[in-house]
This record gives sequence, C-alpha cells and structure tokens, in this order.
Amino acid sequence: MKNTYFTPGPAELYPTFYQHLQRALDEQIGSISHRSQRFRDIYQFADEQLRVLLSIPKSHGIFFTGSASEVWERIILNCVEHESFHLVNGSFSQKFYDYANALQKHAHLQEKPFGEGFDAADIDVPEYAELVCLTHNETSSGVQMRTSEIHKLKRKYPKKLFCVDIVSSAPYPDLDFNLIDSAFFSVQKAFGMPAGLGVWISNQSCLEKAEYLLQNDALTIGAHHTLPTLWKHYKTFETPATPNVLYIYLLGKIAEDFNRIGIDTIRKQTEEKARMLYKFLETSADYEPFVKQERHRSQTVVVANTTKPSPDVIANAKAANMIVGSGYGKLKESQIRIANFPAVSIEQTELLIDQLKK
Amino acid sequence: MKNTYFTPGPAELYPTFYQHLQRALDEQIGSISHRSQRFRDIYQFADEQLRVLLSIPKSHGIFFTGSASEVWERIILNCVEHESFHLVNGSFSQKFYDYANALQKHAHLQEKPFGEGFDAADIDVPEYAELVCLTHNETSSGVQMRTSEIHKLKRKYPKKLFCVDIVSSAPYPDLDFNLIDSAFFSVQKAFGMPAGLGVWISNQSCLEKAEYLLQNDALTIGAHHTLPTLWKHYKTFETPATPNVLYIYLLGKIAEDFNRIGIDTIRKQTEEKARMLYKFLETSADYEPFVKQERHRSQTVVVANTTKPSPDVIANAKAANMIVGSGYGKLKESQIRIANFPAVSIEQTELLIDQLKK
Repeated sequence: MKNTYFTPGPAELYPTFYQHLQRALDEQIGSISHRSQRFRDIYQFADEQLRVLLSIPKSHGIFFTGSASEVWERIILNCVEHESFHLVNGSFSQKFYDYANALQKHAHLQEKPFGEGFDAADIDVPEYAELVCLTHNETSSGVQMRTSEIHKLKRKYPKKLFCVDIVSSAPYPDLDFNLIDSAFFSVQKAFGMPAGLGVWISNQSCLEKAEYLLQNDALTIGAHHTLPTLWKHYKTFETPATPNVLYIYLLGKIAEDFNRIGIDTIRKQTEEKARMLYKFLETSADYEPFVKQERHRSQTVVVANTTKPSPDVIANAKAANMIVGSGYGKLKESQIRIANFPAVSIEQTELLIDQLKK
Repeated sequence: MKNTYFTPGPAELYPTFYQHLQRALDEQIGSISHRSQRFRDIYQFADEQLRVLLSIPKSHGIFFTGSASEVWERIILNCVEHESFHLVNGSFSQKFYDYANALQKHAHLQEKPFGEGFDAADIDVPEYAELVCLTHNETSSGVQMRTSEIHKLKRKYPKKLFCVDIVSSAPYPDLDFNLIDSAFFSVQKAFGMPAGLGVWISNQSCLEKAEYLLQNDALTIGAHHTLPTLWKHYKTFETPATPNVLYIYLLGKIAEDFNRIGIDTIRKQTEEKARMLYKFLETSADYEPFVKQERHRSQTVVVANTTKPSPDVIANAKAANMIVGSGYGKLKESQIRIANFPAVSIEQTELLIDQLKK
C-alpha cells in the first residue's frame, strides 16, 4: 500500500504528476535537445503558467537552476557588492546568511528565537545593505512572515533589492512582484514533484545590479547561472547550460493544473487544511502548536510539540501509511512537522488528524 | 512511432531506464527524505556501482551537482587560488576556460584549431598553474584526447592537480584515477538518462586544496556545493542540499546494468560501433570524418562533414525516425554529429548507416 507523505519536502507527489510523466515519456522529452524549438516551447509554457499562477509581471524573468539552495548563492553573487541583510529565525534563513558569509560579503543579520516570527515594525535594515534577504516560510520551525509585512517593509526601504525565499510555500504567498525584486522556490515542496529543479524569479533591477558588478574586476558574480547569462538565453526561452528539461515540462503541466483549479481556490484550500490542523493541535491534550503567535504560524508547514516522544507518533502514523516529518535538529524527538501542500487533500488531512488522535 | 536519438546529449534513454523509473515510482522514491536511511542506501549504491564501473579508488569521493557545467565552476573555485591551465580545441573546453576567467582566475590556455586534438608531447603546462583542465571528449568537434596521453601528461607534471571533463564520454575512457585528481560528467549523455544531474569525482588532494583556500579570507571557494561541505556529508552518504534523489537512484541502477554487461564489453561495443561509423564515412562519397587524425577521433561523438547540406541529411533521417545531431555553431549547415552511446545498439547503428547511404 502506498504511503501518503506529509513531509515538508521531498513531499507527496501531486496526483497528476504520473500522467504528465507518462506523456513526457511517450513524447521522448528526456531525449530532446535543449536547443530545439520543442524545448523553447516547453520553457515558454512553464513561464506562462507560472506567470499566471504567481502574478509575475513582465519586469521579471523566470530562470531554472539545480536547486533553490543554489539560488541563495546566485542572488548574493549577482546582487551584492559589499553588504547583505538577513532576517534569521531558523535553519534555512540561517543558511541563506551563512552563504553570504562564505561568499565574503558583509552580511548583517537580525535574529529571532526559533519558533518566533518577524513583522515589519521589528526590523531596521542597515543603511548600506544592498539586498534584503527574507524567508517567507521557515521550513525548520513552521514560522511564516506575512506577505503584507514583507510588502510594508519594502515600502519602507524602496531603494533596496528584496529577495524572498518561498521554497516551502509557493504558490501560497500572494507576493506583489511589483514590489519584490526576486523570489525562488524548489519543486519538491508544494508543487509536488521530485527534487532536482530550482526556480528563480528576478527582475530588471537585479539584472542591472549584476551587470554593474560585472564591470568590477575586483569581484566575481560567478561563472555558472549568472543573471546576465540566464537573462540573455531567456530572451529566446533557452538556458546557458543543459537544464532539467523533463522537470521543466512537468512543472509547466502542474502549474497549468493549479491554474485550472485557480490560485484563489488553492490558497483557500491551504488555509482550510491549516485551520483544521491548528484547531486539532490547540484542542488536543497530546499536541500543541509550536508557534505561539497565530499570525506567524505557517500555512504550509505546521509544526507541533508532542507530549509523547515524537518518534513514537511518527512510527504509529507510518504503520497507518502516513509519513509525517520529524522536528528539525535538536527538536527531532519532541516535535512533528506536517506539510500542508496542494498534493494532500482535505480528506487525507482528516485521516491524518484521526490518526494523530489515536 | 518512437524516434531513435543519435544526438550527443540529451540523447537516447538507456533501454532499462523505463523499468527502473517504474520501480522508483512504485517505491515513491520521489517523496522520500534526503535525510533518511533509504536515501543514504541509494547514494551508497550509486557510489559503489560507479566505483566498480570506472575503477575509482577510495582516495576519491563521488558527489552530485545540478549539472556538469556547475562542476566547471566548483573545481575552479575549490582548487585554484591564482592560476589554471586549459587545453582548448572546441566550444566546451572553451567554456571551461571562460568559467575560470569569469571567476577572476589567471587562466592560461593552449589552443588547437576546431577538429584537432592534443597529445602529451604538444603541451607545456605553465610553472604556476595549479590546476590542469582537460577535456577528454570535445562534444562540439568530435575530438578526443587519448587517456594514455592524459596519463603521460600527468606523469610529467605530478604535482599539479588534473581535472578531466568526461561529460560526453564516461564510462568509455579508462582513466587511471590513481593519477587523475578529478573528473566529472552528466547523466544525459552515455548513461542514457534525462538531463538534471552532474557527477563529480574528486580526490583528497582536491579537498586539501579547498581546505587550504578556505583559510584565505581574501577569496571565496563559493558557498553552494563546496568540496569541504560535499565531502563532510558524503561520509554518511548525504548531501549538503536536497539533491535529485530520483536521478541518483536511476543512475545507480543503470550503472549496475553496465556492470552486469561489464565495462570491457561496453568499451568494445563502443569501439565496434565507432569503427562501423568511421569506416562508412571514409568510404562514402557523401560524407567524410571531420577529424583527420585517427587517434584524435572521438569514440563516442562522431562528427562528419556532409557534401549535401546537413539540414537535408538530418531531415531525411528524421523522416525515418532517426534523430541525428547538427554540426556545432557555424558548422551547423555542413556537419552532422552522431552520438555513439551504450543506449544505441549495433543494429540501430547499422540502420542509421543504411539511412545515411540513401
């Protein structure tokens, strides 16, 4: 019997994944040239579907990388000469900051304890920070930053470039890309695909910054997947190097499925399932929501403290063919993480709640 | 009717690919955690199979990236403080050199015209070059450098790190990894998989160089997929970031299939098919081998000049469900490129020759 994966990535595959994969195999998408019109059509289709789904304006290009982690590096290399600024409240926002340090940038940070979230009013962006790095959804702790707060912060600092990690939440967050310069995600979370493809959305301002840095012989913007090379090839829906053609095809098809349902419906379903999960956690004697502030609770990765050892909870769920994520790092034994992605239905969420009640 | 892809990557999928993919879907490999024992077993299996196939000693680790192009960047960042040296005789060896320049290294090059190859006796490695960058098989021109010549060169310069691009030839070249410090390939060529995974083989000497450079605050070895982080996670068969789990599984399975056939047999079959193709080109009035020196002719990517416009040759082959590659760059109209990978049988090669004769 197949398991249902409630893990926060890799996660449950989207139900239509299999039929799209079969079609791709029938059409031999795995063998076509990335310099062919067939590939350009596939890229353009994925671009158009993502553009509709996430309301991405023409000012932004959509590029493909090997992973979202790769984009942490690319955005820092391409958009920071000296200083970046990071909001850090978990393991993944920490890694974004660590990448900036490893790239020898002067990385500023503002921290909150694990499980707490940021609001615009909390934040002072240092004067010389060129890029503000935010994490919409901290996968490790289940904390979100509301998009309204992200937008408010950008309005306060309109001249700084803003980059938002939406790895474990896209397409849920209704980011206003007229404000946000760059965002990125990977496909093995809410898009319900296997891992192996990162998606980087970036605007002309980021490109201009990269082109400015390119003139400076004292630094490098990298050699692979630089914004200028990505953008140059993007104009004809090509890529600088051979990309994951098959996954780009599948991403376009799943984004099309999402558009058929409608992004509003997907967001409402996400909120409905999150409401069910948090309500259960709040009323249960065996669990409680880890994130105290309701406005900071993630809609896509729900984290719970368990009174019983969480490995037992996870083992029991597994025996019922439901795979639940463990707590992150040192919270492995006392927390569970439940992904709330579109691949999992309201009915499956009810079954999980019934299981957790046992 | 399905096409047979004779293109030099993306290429024909290996015949067993489909059954391995079905099994992976049945086992929900696309959803498993990259921090699970199941994933560690998959990584270890791929590692063991590649180790047998390519005779990789314990001194070398095997790492996964998004693509082989990414490795061009990683090896330069991790193993070059000031100077690299490149043999350039085509578009891909040129790109390796371009990457080093983009990373602000002092990149030396020795060039040969498109279609000509290198022997060890031709080559003077500059005194201060730290890394010697060679391309075993230049995919753009169909030129190879014999492994015996690569080994001879390393013996002449034993203290320099040697890195060999085997993107469009692995597992054919019998590289001696007791001499060669690093090599890399991508899976969409001779391994007969869709694009989306790079494989980087690298030894302790490369790691030590990266660790040495890491102490130097005046430069960066990058943040993503650095050798020290790859190696640290590799010790427990994990990866620093979420990798393409599904493709690592498939690569292990195809490498196992190759090992069942035996690498000697695969090499002999490759040579037999190459002999058939070159013999046909030499005796035909309509074609000739582009590479004049027999010892420099690639065994895995056969390039031919055509007397008729090559787009017509390609269109006629396509009408017979055989997809042949075009010439590279400005030779698009006057050459064809024929991949000779394990996914294509002797019988299919005969059918292609019959088609080209028409």
